[in-house]
Amino acid sequence: MSSPPVRLDILKRSGSHHGRRGRVTTPHGSFDTPAFMPVATAAAMKGLTPAQVRSTGSQCILNNAFHLLLRPGHRRIEALGGVHEFMRWDGPILTDSGGFQAFSMADINRVDEDGVTFRSFIDGSVVHLGPESSMEVQQALGADIAMAFDDCPSAAPGGEPAQQRARRVEAKDRSVRWLERCVRAHHRESQALFGIVQGGTDLELRRSSVDATCAFDLPGFAIGGVAVGEAPDAVERVVREIAPLLPESKPRYLMGVGYPADIIMAVESGIDMFDCVLPTRNGRNGFAFTQGGSIRLRNAVHANDGTPIEEGCDCEACRGGFSRAYLRHLFLAGEMLGPVLVSLHNLRLYQRLLLDIRRAIDEDAWLDLRSRWTLATRAESSATDPHGAMDE
Amino acid sequence: MSSPPVRLDILKRSGSHHGRRGRVTTPHGSFDTPAFMPVATAAAMKGLTPAQVRSTGSQCILNNAFHLLLRPGHRRIEALGGVHEFMRWDGPILTDSGGFQAFSMADINRVDEDGVTFRSFIDGSVVHLGPESSMEVQQALGADIAMAFDDCPSAAPGGEPAQQRARRVEAKDRSVRWLERCVRAHHRESQALFGIVQGGTDLELRRSSVDATCAFDLPGFAIGGVAVGEAPDAVERVVREIAPLLPESKPRYLMGVGYPADIIMAVESGIDMFDCVLPTRNGRNGFAFTQGGSIRLRNAVHANDGTPIEEGCDCEACRGGFSRAYLRHLFLAGEMLGPVLVSLHNLRLYQRLLLDIRRAIDEDAWLDLRSRWTLATRAESSATDPHGAMDE
Repeated sequence: MSSPPVRLDILKRSGSHHGRRGRVTTPHGSFDTPAFMPVATAAAMKGLTPAQVRSTGSQCILNNAFHLLLRPGHRRIEALGGVHEFMRWDGPILTDSGGFQAFSMADINRVDEDGVTFRSFIDGSVVHLGPESSMEVQQALGADIAMAFDDCPSAAPGGEPAQQRARRVEAKDRSVRWLERCVRAHHRESQALFGIVQGGTDLELRRSSVDATCAFDLPGFAIGGVAVGEAPDAVERVVREIAPLLPESKPRYLMGVGYPADIIMAVESGIDMFDCVLPTRNGRNGFAFTQGGSIRLRNAVHANDGTPIEEGCDCEACRGGFSRAYLRHLFLAGEMLGPVLVSLHNLRLYQRLLLDIRRAIDEDAWLDLRSRWTLATRAESSATDPHGAMDE
Repeated sequence: MSSPPVRLDILKRSGSHHGRRGRVTTPHGSFDTPAFMPVATAAAMKGLTPAQVRSTGSQCILNNAFHLLLRPGHRRIEALGGVHEFMRWDGPILTDSGGFQAFSMADINRVDEDGVTFRSFIDGSVVHLGPESSMEVQQALGADIAMAFDDCPSAAPGGEPAQQRARRVEAKDRSVRWLERCVRAHHRESQALFGIVQGGTDLELRRSSVDATCAFDLPGFAIGGVAVGEAPDAVERVVREIAPLLPESKPRYLMGVGYPADIIMAVESGIDMFDCVLPTRNGRNGFAFTQGGSIRLRNAVHANDGTPIEEGCDCEACRGGFSRAYLRHLFLAGEMLGPVLVSLHNLRLYQRLLLDIRRAIDEDAWLDLRSRWTLATRAESSATDPHGAMDE
C-alpha cells in the first residue's frame, strides 16, 4: 500500500496541555501546525493576489467546493489543470465538501439519505450534492485535502428537545454512513480524504461519532458542526472533550473556528488546523484585529490618526505606513484598497498568532502567550460561521 | 530667483516629428517622458497598493483635488503630512485643479467670474471653488505639480452656434484672467504650477489662448478641454496644431488623453505627459487592452481559455499565469481580484507603450512603433473623459 498523500510529523509536544507543534506534508508542499488556513471561497482571496496571501505567512488555504461547483464548474477547473493551476496557488489547498453551504440554504433544499437537493443561487437550476457527487467535485478540483460530505444540522433545529435530539442522532449516524460512501467513491491518490466528527453539543453523541468516524483509516479528522450558532462555552466544552480523542498521529482540524481566543483554547486541546472567514470578512468591512483588541476603522476617532493599525506589526499595511486616517478615508470613499489593506493586516495578525503559538509550544512558554493575546479575544459580535457564508 | 521645482531635460529629439524623449525632475524624484500618469482619484488607485502601481512602471500619478477637497479634506491631508505621505506614494504626484469635476456637475453648479459654486456629492453642502481656493487646496495637498484653475466648458455648450462660440471665447479669456489670479495665489516653492490652454476645437481661439497663457513664465503647460465629447479628429487637429506652439523647453501635458493611438499621435506633436482613467476604469469592468486590440473578459469565448490576457506581457497578471478563464470567473463571481489583476495588466500595457515610444524616439525607429501598436487603437466605445469621472 502506498503512503498517504498527507502526513503529520509532530515535532514538539506541549508540556502543559494537549497542544503539539508539527508539520503537515502534502503533494503541494508542507505547512506548519498549528495552522490557520484563510478562506478563498470562490478560488480567490477577495482582492488579494496569491503573492499577497503568501506574504501574510499563510501556507495552506481553503476553497469552497459548493461555490466552485456552481461557478465556474468543477469540470471546467479540472480541464484547466485543477484548482491550484486555476487560481495560481502552488501551496497546499483544502476543499470543504459543499455540504454546509447546501444545508444552510434551508428554505430551498431537501435532505434525504442520498444527500441534499437545492437550487443554484446563480441560475436557479436544481443541483444535487451527496457523498458520491461531493467526492466527484472535490477530486476534479484536485485539492490536497478533501473533506467528507456530512450531514450538519444547525445548532438549533426546529421542534421539541426530543425531536432536536433525534435530528442530531440522525445527522451523526447518517454522516457515518455517508463517510463510508465517500471512502468508496474517493480514488484520487494525490488527495487526502478527512473524516468529520458530528454530534452537536451533546458529548455522548460526539464520542459515539468519534468511535464510528475514526474507525476509518483516514489521514486526518475534523470536528465539524461547531460555531454554527451555539453558545461559545458549548463549543469550548466539545473541543476540550473531543479533540484529545481524535487519533494522536493524524492532523486534527477544527472547522470554521474562530477568534484568536478560540484558537488558543483549541490548540490546548490538541487541534492542528483552523479555517475562518473572520480576518477577510472583517477586513473587508473595516474591522481590524490587533493584539490589543479590535478596531473599527470607520470610526471618526481615526480621522486624524497618523499611526498604523498596529505599531510593530510587519504586515504590508502597517509596515507600509498606511495610517488609520488613510484607511478610514478609503472605507468612507468606498475604495477597494481599504478592504485589501485591512484584509492583509488581519491575515497577518492571525498568522502572527499562529507563529507565536508554535513558538510557545516549542519553548514551553504557554502562559506568556496567553498574556500576550488576552485582549485579542472573542469579539462582542455574532458567533463565527464555520465553512464560510455565502458572501465570503 | 530660485530654480523651478519641476524641470524638463530633453535627452533626444525625434528625427521625423515633434516628439522628444526626456526626463522631468520634481521634488519627489524624476519621471521619464513621454509619460503616462495613472489616475488615483481619491488618493487610491482602486485596489492597487502603491507597490503594485510602481510595478507597472508608473512613475508619476495624478490625484483629483475636487475629490480630496470634499473627502477627507485638504486641511486634514496637510495635517497628516501631505498627499504623498497620506497615500504612501513617494514619487511625483500631479493634482488637477478640481475645476473640471465641479463644472461637469452642470445641474448643480453656478459659474461666475469668481469660480464655480456647487453642492458636495457627499453631504450636499455648498462648496465654492475658484482660482484662489483651488490654489489653497492644491498647495495644502502638496503635490509636485498643481494645475491652474480654468474655465472648461463642455464640447457642446447649449444655444446657437454664435452663442456657443461666445461661451468658448468667454471661457478662454476667463481662464487667462483666472491663471493670473492662480499665479498670484500660488506660493509653494516645492510645487510647480502649470498653465492650461483652452479654446475648444477652434484653432483661432486655441492660438490666442496659447499666446496669453504662455506669456506667464510657468514651468509647464497643458492642453485642456479636449476629449470632453468632441469628435476624435477634432482632438487630433487641435493637438497637432497647438502642441508644437507650447514652449519648447517646458513639459507639455495633454489632459485626459487617451487611447494608445491618441497617445502616439500626440507624442508626434510634441506632448510629454498624459493621464487617463481608461486603463483602470476599463480594467475594473473586465476590458483588457492588448497590443493586438482589446478584450472583454466576461465573454463566454474565454470560459475555457487557459492562456493569459497577452502572451509575452510582463505584468503581474500575465507573468503570474492567471488565465483568461480564471479572470472571467472572477468577474462573473464579483471577486475584487478581477479588477485588481486587469487594472495591473492595463496599466502595464500603457507603460509598455510609453517605454516603446521612448525607445522608438531614442533609436529613431518610429515607423516600427506604429506598426507594432496599430491594433491597440481607439476603441469603438465612447470618447475618453479628461480629468477622471466621478466614479473613477
